[in-house]
Amino acid sequence: MIEFLKKAKKAKKEIAMLTTEVKNNILFEMADALIEECNYIIENNEKDMSEAILSNLSKDIKDRLLLTGERIVDMSNALKEIAALKEPINRVLDGWTVQNGLNIQKVSIPIGVIAIIYESRPNVTSDVAALCLKSGNVCILKGGKEAKHSNQAITKILRNVLEKNNVSKEVISLIPNNDREAVASLIIQDKYLDLIIPRGGEELIKFVNKNASVPVIKHDKGLCHMYLDKDANHNKAITIAINAKCQRPGVCNAMETLLIHKDVAAYLLPPLHEKFIKEKTQIKACTETRTYIDVQSATLEDYHTEYLANIVNIKVVENVDEAIEHINIYSSGHSESIISENYSTINKFLDEVDSACVYANASTRFTDGNAFGFGAEVGISTNKLHARGPMGVNDLTTFKYKIYGNGQIK
Amino acid sequence: MIEFLKKAKKAKKEIAMLTTEVKNNILFEMADALIEECNYIIENNEKDMSEAILSNLSKDIKDRLLLTGERIVDMSNALKEIAALKEPINRVLDGWTVQNGLNIQKVSIPIGVIAIIYESRPNVTSDVAALCLKSGNVCILKGGKEAKHSNQAITKILRNVLEKNNVSKEVISLIPNNDREAVASLIIQDKYLDLIIPRGGEELIKFVNKNASVPVIKHDKGLCHMYLDKDANHNKAITIAINAKCQRPGVCNAMETLLIHKDVAAYLLPPLHEKFIKEKTQIKACTETRTYIDVQSATLEDYHTEYLANIVNIKVVENVDEAIEHINIYSSGHSESIISENYSTINKFLDEVDSACVYANASTRFTDGNAFGFGAEVGISTNKLHARGPMGVNDLTTFKYKIYGNGQIK
Repeated sequence: MIEFLKKAKKAKKEIAMLTTEVKNNILFEMADALIEECNYIIENNEKDMSEAILSNLSKDIKDRLLLTGERIVDMSNALKEIAALKEPINRVLDGWTVQNGLNIQKVSIPIGVIAIIYESRPNVTSDVAALCLKSGNVCILKGGKEAKHSNQAITKILRNVLEKNNVSKEVISLIPNNDREAVASLIIQDKYLDLIIPRGGEELIKFVNKNASVPVIKHDKGLCHMYLDKDANHNKAITIAINAKCQRPGVCNAMETLLIHKDVAAYLLPPLHEKFIKEKTQIKACTETRTYIDVQSATLEDYHTEYLANIVNIKVVENVDEAIEHINIYSSGHSESIISENYSTINKFLDEVDSACVYANASTRFTDGNAFGFGAEVGISTNKLHARGPMGVNDLTTFKYKIYGNGQIK
Repeated sequence: MIEFLKKAKKAKKEIAMLTTEVKNNILFEMADALIEECNYIIENNEKDMSEAILSNLSKDIKDRLLLTGERIVDMSNALKEIAALKEPINRVLDGWTVQNGLNIQKVSIPIGVIAIIYESRPNVTSDVAALCLKSGNVCILKGGKEAKHSNQAITKILRNVLEKNNVSKEVISLIPNNDREAVASLIIQDKYLDLIIPRGGEELIKFVNKNASVPVIKHDKGLCHMYLDKDANHNKAITIAINAKCQRPGVCNAMETLLIHKDVAAYLLPPLHEKFIKEKTQIKACTETRTYIDVQSATLEDYHTEYLANIVNIKVVENVDEAIEHINIYSSGHSESIISENYSTINKFLDEVDSACVYANASTRFTDGNAFGFGAEVGISTNKLHARGPMGVNDLTTFKYKIYGNGQIK
């Protein structure tokens, strides 16, 4: 592991110094190479798929694992989109001159060596590698073990393009062993790593948070809420709530708990119930809700659960304060939304809810790099420091101060 | 400890919501209270000073510990300066509208509950408490045990002002027990704390980094370098090098190692030697340096040492590349400077040296919040993420996205 990390660290200066032109050429060549080597990728993906069938992995995981010609075209296009992003390095973020004439410039620079721990989707491999390359960072990838062959194939193709362009292959590397011990030894290498980004399950995040000495930007679960206020437009409230839960229940920005003001519960619950039935959504609800509609009761545990499935909790609240309090206790700090036409209530909600993304009158489903206009994304940070919410290419940079003097002494 | 942290967490929303006017009034009242209670502070400081004498603490530490009337006036003025800073909260950092009409605003908000672990100087207590208050954060202070009585007195005065203004006293609290165990149990409270800022010795920083589950912004040692290039103006080179080492050797932004290009070693070393002798600076040097001036030889360990004293390492290097390489190995990432008139050499140095502050033709001594125009500072961050270099009041904020819609669904 140490030898491996030493090589990665050595490549740091090289990648940081590449010009935009060289980086973009490499990204375009990588995009082409993925298409040219499409069959090679699919062959390797088939190995993963066979093992997935043997291991009896869920339909959902198998779907995430699968690579088709079409999906590989999407991966290739993502690289071209990343090439088209504005250069993230050497942006002058701020600049001023102080009394003694020193000119201070705050300039964006790469973070250095970034390790990303992620789950089953093999397209993340090329997305994240490309985002790191664009932002001048060395990346160390640790994909899900069920995607081993696919990830190895994709990484090999990307590294070949680096080599052809006389750039160290160590700029992109995949951790060969896929066990938890590899993670455990990785996260304490603060001599070599500048950042760890864990994406995935709650247990992984907790483990990394507890044991890492390397700085962590965590991509935790999405336990998202929507609050239907007493001053909500009823049509908007129903349409947006159904969308936030049902449009794609298995993703992190889908709603898990719906809070409804007591004054509108009687009007909103029956039509919501009807629509949720049509969408085959399972409802778990508080006692008050169950006086209006005939559904299962929710436990305290349910409010703590990210279902990633077509299940929703419904709770009636006294007012916006109780909604905010509930959210600040149960939320994972990802995305929350209020539906209301009341100016002051909206402001209160947006100010007091302590989450990365707080919406007024829109679905929580917009929390992603694409919807935010960032192009590709590393993921959704639930950190409070450095990067929060959709993490784009600019969030993969840090800064230094360059200070220009002409002999100043103190 | 948990009860203590629960109370602090509870105060988070209250302080975050205070208006600029209320916060500034409190800061001005605190500034007045420090002056009014000057004798009470000095009485308590005398207890610390007596214990310091009994414990045989160094002259240096005793000087840092001492509070005089004049120093208390400085502390009071610092609070007024912090009140005068621009409001750091609710700045719109960025904003745009995406295709579907969603208006996204990136807005600065407080970080939450911040624990600061610091060393002997009691003025840090009021500085840091005021910076946290101004930025809407709850602070938990853990000062040096040698300043126990002084810190308790200062905190009590500040908390009384909070109380008089009907603000929870828990917004500012001082950890009562001062042992290492208190630190150990503090840094794993990620349920209650949003950030830990350790200022101080290498051992403390290492301990916190290794064991914390709360995010850390470290204020590590300052192992700063200066490189005198072959194209340096000789007068500037000598004046700036002497200033960087001798003006105040005990601080983190003082130079520890001076690197000199081999082509100018013969011209620069004898006059530097002469000036360093006048300043009573002890010199430790490489073999090559010792062919020009008669000084002690430096060990590898010396290049790793932050002297905080009037001692300097001198090393002759082949070229700017060797200087950059030396710095990137031995530096703590704080501040480095190049003295040169060569445009390309300066650019290379500023680009390739991986430190928070990189200077051209100026003393490293300018790395502080005041010199940068930030007013007061929390310290000098040697982190690479979130805050780097002088950490001002804006660095005590994070952000959220507020997203304004009118019915958008996905």
